[in-house]
Amino acid sequence: MTDTTPDELDQVLDDAVAAAAVLRGRSPAERADWLRAAADALDGAAERLIPLAQEESRLPRPRLTGELKRTTFQLRLFADEIAAGAYLHATVDHADPAWGMGPRPDLRRMQLPLGPVAVWAASNFPFAFSVAGGDTASALAAGCPVVLVAHPGHPGLSRATAEVLIAALEGAGAPQGVFALVEGQETGRALITDPRVAAGAFTGSLRGGRALFDLASGRETPIPFYGELGSVNPAFVTTAAAAARAEEVAAGFAGSMALGVGQFCTKPGLLFVPADSPIPGLVAERLKEVAGAPMLNDRIREGYGEALSALASHEVVEVLAGTADPSGDPAPTLLRTSAAEILADPRPLTAELFGPAALVVEYTDDEELLAAARTLEGQLTATIQGEEGDQIAPALLEVLSERAGRVLWGGWPTGVSVTYAQQHGGPYPATTAVGTTSVGTAAIERFLRPVAYQDLPEALLPEPLQDANPWSVPQRIDGVHPS
Amino acid sequence: MTDTTPDELDQVLDDAVAAAAVLRGRSPAERADWLRAAADALDGAAERLIPLAQEESRLPRPRLTGELKRTTFQLRLFADEIAAGAYLHATVDHADPAWGMGPRPDLRRMQLPLGPVAVWAASNFPFAFSVAGGDTASALAAGCPVVLVAHPGHPGLSRATAEVLIAALEGAGAPQGVFALVEGQETGRALITDPRVAAGAFTGSLRGGRALFDLASGRETPIPFYGELGSVNPAFVTTAAAAARAEEVAAGFAGSMALGVGQFCTKPGLLFVPADSPIPGLVAERLKEVAGAPMLNDRIREGYGEALSALASHEVVEVLAGTADPSGDPAPTLLRTSAAEILADPRPLTAELFGPAALVVEYTDDEELLAAARTLEGQLTATIQGEEGDQIAPALLEVLSERAGRVLWGGWPTGVSVTYAQQHGGPYPATTAVGTTSVGTAAIERFLRPVAYQDLPEALLPEPLQDANPWSVPQRIDGVHPS
Repeated sequence: MTDTTPDELDQVLDDAVAAAAVLRGRSPAERADWLRAAADALDGAAERLIPLAQEESRLPRPRLTGELKRTTFQLRLFADEIAAGAYLHATVDHADPAWGMGPRPDLRRMQLPLGPVAVWAASNFPFAFSVAGGDTASALAAGCPVVLVAHPGHPGLSRATAEVLIAALEGAGAPQGVFALVEGQETGRALITDPRVAAGAFTGSLRGGRALFDLASGRETPIPFYGELGSVNPAFVTTAAAAARAEEVAAGFAGSMALGVGQFCTKPGLLFVPADSPIPGLVAERLKEVAGAPMLNDRIREGYGEALSALASHEVVEVLAGTADPSGDPAPTLLRTSAAEILADPRPLTAELFGPAALVVEYTDDEELLAAARTLEGQLTATIQGEEGDQIAPALLEVLSERAGRVLWGGWPTGVSVTYAQQHGGPYPATTAVGTTSVGTAAIERFLRPVAYQDLPEALLPEPLQDANPWSVPQRIDGVHPS
Repeated sequence: MTDTTPDELDQVLDDAVAAAAVLRGRSPAERADWLRAAADALDGAAERLIPLAQEESRLPRPRLTGELKRTTFQLRLFADEIAAGAYLHATVDHADPAWGMGPRPDLRRMQLPLGPVAVWAASNFPFAFSVAGGDTASALAAGCPVVLVAHPGHPGLSRATAEVLIAALEGAGAPQGVFALVEGQETGRALITDPRVAAGAFTGSLRGGRALFDLASGRETPIPFYGELGSVNPAFVTTAAAAARAEEVAAGFAGSMALGVGQFCTKPGLLFVPADSPIPGLVAERLKEVAGAPMLNDRIREGYGEALSALASHEVVEVLAGTADPSGDPAPTLLRTSAAEILADPRPLTAELFGPAALVVEYTDDEELLAAARTLEGQLTATIQGEEGDQIAPALLEVLSERAGRVLWGGWPTGVSVTYAQQHGGPYPATTAVGTTSVGTAAIERFLRPVAYQDLPEALLPEPLQDANPWSVPQRIDGVHPS
């Protein structure tokens, strides 16, 4: 990996600023075509990119094939979303001399792109959260140029993907500078503190993300920083579900926590079960059948080993399956403690552990379960395994919806579908921006800012705000939502 | 003014947390009734409140009568907005086995309230940006309890308004703790760093707002901080407009900059005119007719005097009308410089000056005007006085829409109507949250966070996400916007 030099970064940012100006003059329909061209080019380059990804990420080919499909699907979905125009939130208030607080001028508001966005790639999704991943797709969809900081875990793939992406975007008519790849940790720090950058987006560790958030907030001119920092993703098995479906719950949990060597930010890391349940034993049995597998890179492997050793050696934690031995490719590890211990000192037991380990938490009654749930910090997801008519369900749902971005009933949190209603976010430390999502079409909103125009002549108004509405975007007119 | 004690604040916050839990169980229609009851009670208390406001703010009665009307109109408009339910952004994706990236679960997202919000009152709008003002109204509309830090400029009015507001809210069925008034600068610092507070909203000075933003961002758990910090609100007169309407432009500008002794965050503080225009002289003549008037309080008067003296004594600035004499009630002051000086060193000449002073900036040609406009920082507003067919208009509009939250054509920025399309915000230092507005119905969005529910049974889903849709809120279903 060769760090981008300060001079190179300076040129990249000048180009991004120039591209931002060009983008402001292009319609969402044009940008949609660029995104579709990028998707087609990436699909076409699969046979070049997937072997590179296999080599650098140690992930298996079927997983990478599926991830590339997700990545190009996402680009096309975001293209359709912006082409339809609702994302502009075009709002037209005609002048009204009879307005209740006094005569109202003609006011029209829409969303405009923020400007150049810095994006940090993640290691665990070398396609879907990397060079052409969700943050890049949503920033480009919003009309913002992207400067992407490559993840050092897959440098060759990053460069190859960037090459395909840039050729496709510029080939489809996007301006030079609409996307650039840069490398190096210091480059990232220079980027987030540069006045030419209007926002940052990041998926990665709490430590790295918080450091960048602090830089973004501490600037002379602070900018939004959308950090997705991680989550322990608690799962809760009610007494009724434990009685009715112990085998199914155990199999589902084991599969979800061990999937991809536990390297998902939505990996369920805590499983609350009734104290007398057979579920911990059943999960342990399942996990013992899972062989060790290589992690994404040695740094992650080491971090996992250290965090696991610390948790496993905690005096209130017992190892049920697997080993805290830090050598070799890690096999899944299951640990156990009690809800009473969580209540006594939650933080050391409920922090994210990135890798194939999880902690079973045994509770004695519903009150204790709810109290333990209330100790949890912000989460990307929280899962309930319950049964119809479960007495605890409404109260538990309320506690979890206050703490998590997504609450599941009867499924498992790994697998984050890209849809209109998806919410991949949550209160800190799950993210640094509680009101936003980094997955799903609403991710585009992070890179927009509203502007109102007062008493502008029709000819000077942006197309989405004109009475003639030449792009046929949905307009809220005088308070009436579009129909 | 008696500072709230730490023990009192602790109780207020415990009550706010308890109220937040109750609010989560109430429908927007119920909250709308509370807001309407508050509006009615405030209107009914006009004869008690307005004299208090006159005494403490030194503002004239007609202005305060209009401001109270604005305040109660705003409460009722926000009530209607939440009752209609579109603000929930209810989004329903049914399970879809044929979804392009692989089978999709049932996913449903809506907006939930953030939790207790800390609000700082402003001095210059003792009703509309104070106890029952826009931040309070939008936070309550979102379903968040409010802890309001009274402005020391109108303590008696603040307490009286809080009394009326609390009685009305609780009388209409809102829980105890839904609103509380606290006092003191240290109380404010304790509030923004308290883990029970979920967001902050502030209207006031750059210095005070930045200090609170830094505290909010530096917390162990950072929270959103919506600071409206101010703006110099540049106005640009094109050569065509200067030739066609010099008298009208001069009269309009003089009226807007001197209105309310220049104590609006939207006061136009910069007026760009062609170098040979009679406008500066015409403005000066108008201003000489305006008598001095008392400012809101002595602290503001002193701050204004210091900032004005500094600007007036700048070697490239000339005084055209009024005086930089800091004694007595200030009469309007008009200063003059050139665009070349702005280009040479913009910051000292383009900072906000809160009070009845403005700087005329003479430019030699359109290129210089555009270049000077590009030096400006983030603004709440920017105004163009132009003519049909003005060559410079599109380029100037583009430069200004990148820098301001609201761009006006042919009017003046004082007077901020509360509407659906209003945008009172802008890039830093106009605000600390570029994607938001503090005026208009969209202000409610600041206090919400999205949550997605996956595969929940209908009976456990919140009402806005149920297929039966018992509240009849607009739902985006499977990507199709409501109609």
